[in-house]
Amino acid sequence: MGSSDHEDDRRDGEGEGGSSIEQIFESKEVPSWAGQLTLRAFAVSLGLGFLFGFIVMKLNLTTGIIPSLNVAAGLLGFFFVKSWTTVLSKIGFSSKPFTRQENTVIQTCVVASSGISFSSGYASYILGMTKKVAAQSDAGNTPINTKTLSLGWMIGFVLVVSFVGLFSILPLRRIMILQYKLTYPSGTATAYLINSFHTPKGAKLAKKQVASLFKWFSVSFVWAFFQWFFTAADGCGFASFPTFGLQAFKYNFYFDFSSTYVGVGMICPYIINLSMLLGSVISWGIMWPLIEKKQGVWYTAGGMRGLQGYKVFVAIAMILGDGLYHFVAVFAKTSISLIKNLRENRDGSRTDPLSLENDNLSYDDKRRIKYFTQDQIPMSVALGGYAFLAIISIIIVPHIFTQLKWYHILVIYLVAPILAFCNSYGCGLTDWSLASNYGKIAIFVFGSWVGMEKGGVVAGLAACGVMMSIVSTASDLMQDFKTGYLTLASPRSMFCSQVIGTLMGCIISPVVFWVFFYKAYPTLGEPGSSFPAPFGLLYRGIALIGTEGTSALPKHCLEIALGFLLLAVSLNLLRDMLCHFKISAHKYVPSAMAMAIPFYLGGYFTIDMCVGSLIRFIWEKKDKKKAEAFVPAMASGLICGDSIWGLPAAVLSLAKVKPPICMKFLSRSANAKVDGFLGG
Amino acid sequence: MGSSDHEDDRRDGEGEGGSSIEQIFESKEVPSWAGQLTLRAFAVSLGLGFLFGFIVMKLNLTTGIIPSLNVAAGLLGFFFVKSWTTVLSKIGFSSKPFTRQENTVIQTCVVASSGISFSSGYASYILGMTKKVAAQSDAGNTPINTKTLSLGWMIGFVLVVSFVGLFSILPLRRIMILQYKLTYPSGTATAYLINSFHTPKGAKLAKKQVASLFKWFSVSFVWAFFQWFFTAADGCGFASFPTFGLQAFKYNFYFDFSSTYVGVGMICPYIINLSMLLGSVISWGIMWPLIEKKQGVWYTAGGMRGLQGYKVFVAIAMILGDGLYHFVAVFAKTSISLIKNLRENRDGSRTDPLSLENDNLSYDDKRRIKYFTQDQIPMSVALGGYAFLAIISIIIVPHIFTQLKWYHILVIYLVAPILAFCNSYGCGLTDWSLASNYGKIAIFVFGSWVGMEKGGVVAGLAACGVMMSIVSTASDLMQDFKTGYLTLASPRSMFCSQVIGTLMGCIISPVVFWVFFYKAYPTLGEPGSSFPAPFGLLYRGIALIGTEGTSALPKHCLEIALGFLLLAVSLNLLRDMLCHFKISAHKYVPSAMAMAIPFYLGGYFTIDMCVGSLIRFIWEKKDKKKAEAFVPAMASGLICGDSIWGLPAAVLSLAKVKPPICMKFLSRSANAKVDGFLGG
Repeated sequence: MGSSDHEDDRRDGEGEGGSSIEQIFESKEVPSWAGQLTLRAFAVSLGLGFLFGFIVMKLNLTTGIIPSLNVAAGLLGFFFVKSWTTVLSKIGFSSKPFTRQENTVIQTCVVASSGISFSSGYASYILGMTKKVAAQSDAGNTPINTKTLSLGWMIGFVLVVSFVGLFSILPLRRIMILQYKLTYPSGTATAYLINSFHTPKGAKLAKKQVASLFKWFSVSFVWAFFQWFFTAADGCGFASFPTFGLQAFKYNFYFDFSSTYVGVGMICPYIINLSMLLGSVISWGIMWPLIEKKQGVWYTAGGMRGLQGYKVFVAIAMILGDGLYHFVAVFAKTSISLIKNLRENRDGSRTDPLSLENDNLSYDDKRRIKYFTQDQIPMSVALGGYAFLAIISIIIVPHIFTQLKWYHILVIYLVAPILAFCNSYGCGLTDWSLASNYGKIAIFVFGSWVGMEKGGVVAGLAACGVMMSIVSTASDLMQDFKTGYLTLASPRSMFCSQVIGTLMGCIISPVVFWVFFYKAYPTLGEPGSSFPAPFGLLYRGIALIGTEGTSALPKHCLEIALGFLLLAVSLNLLRDMLCHFKISAHKYVPSAMAMAIPFYLGGYFTIDMCVGSLIRFIWEKKDKKKAEAFVPAMASGLICGDSIWGLPAAVLSLAKVKPPICMKFLSRSANAKVDGFLGG
Repeated sequence: MGSSDHEDDRRDGEGEGGSSIEQIFESKEVPSWAGQLTLRAFAVSLGLGFLFGFIVMKLNLTTGIIPSLNVAAGLLGFFFVKSWTTVLSKIGFSSKPFTRQENTVIQTCVVASSGISFSSGYASYILGMTKKVAAQSDAGNTPINTKTLSLGWMIGFVLVVSFVGLFSILPLRRIMILQYKLTYPSGTATAYLINSFHTPKGAKLAKKQVASLFKWFSVSFVWAFFQWFFTAADGCGFASFPTFGLQAFKYNFYFDFSSTYVGVGMICPYIINLSMLLGSVISWGIMWPLIEKKQGVWYTAGGMRGLQGYKVFVAIAMILGDGLYHFVAVFAKTSISLIKNLRENRDGSRTDPLSLENDNLSYDDKRRIKYFTQDQIPMSVALGGYAFLAIISIIIVPHIFTQLKWYHILVIYLVAPILAFCNSYGCGLTDWSLASNYGKIAIFVFGSWVGMEKGGVVAGLAACGVMMSIVSTASDLMQDFKTGYLTLASPRSMFCSQVIGTLMGCIISPVVFWVFFYKAYPTLGEPGSSFPAPFGLLYRGIALIGTEGTSALPKHCLEIALGFLLLAVSLNLLRDMLCHFKISAHKYVPSAMAMAIPFYLGGYFTIDMCVGSLIRFIWEKKDKKKAEAFVPAMASGLICGDSIWGLPAAVLSLAKVKPPICMKFLSRSANAKVDGFLGG
């Protein structure tokens, strides 16, 4: 199967290195999929789901920046169940052994639950519908373009839209995980952590790897803690360090000292990191500065009508181009291979490269593939489930939002799987989920379709909710499948855990928002209040532009976006052609998906990731074997430590403990002014 | 000889580690002492002496902060002579091989020459005599308390006072280098660098050490370069990083990211670094904050009449206490051992622990001691030279400064050797030369002795010059002896080189000041001009207080200082007692000299040095043998890279290229104000 050839250079990231993880775990029994779903796991998940839901909601309503919580969920899940079983055994009760599969189930459930706090949009699209936010902008403050919040319809809406995503790309998990071998850096790091928690005693290399993981975990945690002290306000601290000067900083080129992304860069393949760097240079280094000079000619306004419009649309176009190509290619190749298979079955048997008889596979791979393919979820369940839930949604959503018609929802459900695939694929490559961007596109498209008079603002925002829920949960699920793959957890138990977690989230999230925030803080959503929820107004702003149609976009924006969509397709074609003719240059064709991410976000995390690549490169040059064994451990440690710091940081933020110092970067002239001001 | 027992734990810092440096160099012939003094060496020295003299003068007149130039001198000396011989051999001329001894001679000569630019005080005590500086303060602006500068008497004065210091502690070099095994971190690092330049090919460990040295050299240089960009103004950059918070920063507790001092800390013995940390905590952590609370009760003014007075006097008292103790102890023990020797010579022979027959000495030590003790400078030359030069000075100086009488100068020359010893001893332990502080004491004492009416201000400043010249050159010379000891350069050639370098400096320094600065910039010495020379006014300020006598000092200052002088003596007594009774706790008695340094300067460099100690400690825990081999190389690399950056930094400063960014640290409230100011 040539389709996966050009993916071979993508490392799997499990880094068996010298020894095999699964050989170490061989003696440990893997429970059946149902045996992995224990009551205690869901009890712990419920508690953690509430805690994390609260934290995410709070972060959502203050800055809108939410760290990845996979690792924290895995760690705390282990901690609670392990403490529980230890306490029980101390007082004389015996309990079922705590397995890594059970741990993965908890992690999955908690991530699914807290994910709803983000995708349910109480700080973004739902808040954007309220009269309070509407009153803050000039246009669209009409009854049909606002909606009064009430706990009833909010729970109903989130229940109706949140489960569809789970089914949307379920059939593609074999292709994503086994064939494309996508990295899913957070998922891999979590699996690593969970594996290391449960490593049986006596495994020497594993012990060293665990020691290395915890060393880097501590370094990363302490570093994140130390950084915290210098972030008294926005633009303060190491995250705003103009490493390459203030001019480069303005264009988002700087090393932001994030150990998370250094770790992610260590796990990601070189070509991905270099593609992202290339993307950063093309976009923030060349294109945006050039387009900026056209201010007044091509555009006059700010936001989506200005430079921001180019950024969002060009990035989305490249991602769509890459995603569509892969989507079509997968279908085509699957069909061809099916036909071939049928023919060959007539002629005689042929070895599937992923079958367990393939000798090129390592012991770990074989064992993982065995468990991953063991408990299948039938295609009929996936397709049937998707269709059934989509129909329910198509019936109910127009009753909640009368501005949306049934055919709008139908269109979303027809397009959503493609976008969900694109997002999961990109997330697997780069660890970035761009769910909210797909949501923004939906706001724009449906806002413009429905029009201002017929309530296009609310329609757009509601469509965003439907779209974001699908795209976001799909990539979360795939991330969890990767974790499950690496911990031998059954896909079926993963799926069940995700369903249960989603259900928890659908209750926890609206209730927490309603009780602890919306009713508790009457000023919520107002700028300058303790919960400004900036994304409420931002999302509504996109909807307002959308109702004016693409004509509101800056000049040449659509043409440029189309050009980059074609570039993305061409790059993929080029790679597959080179690959087909066995020209090794195919390894050096950049990934369009990876290139697109920094188009919107800027190059700073790319720099981090390239630093990670550099560390791995030097290490591999010095001692290849050692590097293979310890790079993933170090990377996971770096990612985990930084992520776990997110918890105490959120607690400090909730307790209104603010960092004492601002590390500020001023130009020489600004500094002279400031010194004069402070001195005088 | 019990006297050196408690010094045994002080590492020599040469770090022979696994292999012996001198075995590697065994094949290389060591030239005779006269053979080390080549014409080309002094030609290069003259060029570098001029360059460095210019740089030091410039730095002196702008901020007054001067980096150690030993390493740069060694490196550039090597570079020029090596290039010269390479070019000659390419065009067919053969030349004498370039030896490390010759390299050391160049380094010594350049350091001696550029040292005069500092000790000649054109930016401090001499400038403080001028009418222009006198006009800036309230009192003492009378003809008898000012002096008009003229090139003639300036050259005369510097010639008369600069050579005395070379003879002042010459007889003690055996005790300082061989018996006390003082570290002299800069001298050791320079020797390391010079040795590594001249290492014969084929020595495997040495090659690795050199590679390590250059790796850390590059890291340190690049780091210093990177830091530069963020230092647009005072209080900017990594050197002002409030690592432990703003409160701690206010009291000088912070890690200032100086790779020089991390390197110095790696070479210095643990007990020295810990003593300094203790000193920092006692002074800046406890005493100064307590005394600060007495403001208005114990003192009202700032400067030497206030908190600064306590700092300077307590620090000097401890240093004096420690230095006096050692001075007395050395004399007593030398006398006792002489008497014993005489008796034992009658009874039979006894092995001197430093004689070459002692089997406890390593090969390196034996070879170094051999060359170090080979070319002696007779005691009579040292004492005779000192007496002769002192008499000349006593005759001539009162003619230049009529405010000083012959007996004032006599007193200085009687006291100076003790202070020179103290300073050299402290510098050997900690790398800090406190020459300017001894100078300040002289200003105070002689200013007060002569009195305002009889020209006490000029008298004090001139006495400072006499004192500083002795103390400063003495410690420079001892530092160079250490370098020479480690490179097998003859003490005699070192001494000659220092004499020639001093002569160069005595001409270069006044001429450079006169031609390039004093006559070229009429605003020199005025605040706000491009050459504010802040120390001119500062030194004059001390003299003004001095003329009012010790009554001008803040309350209880003398009592506290006396207490710490006694503490220093007691600590030494305690250590020697414990040592005498063979109680191993003597290792843990802190060094008073080391404790005193941060009393005045604050704890920031102590933190750096403790970081260095920590690195060494962890490294030794992990792999003792490797650490012993590579710690000195890494330390030297760190020190050298940072120091060499001083050259391009000075060139940039001369070319008026200023760093573009200020990395500033503000409290949360100050930051909010600044943001408001910048935003509004």
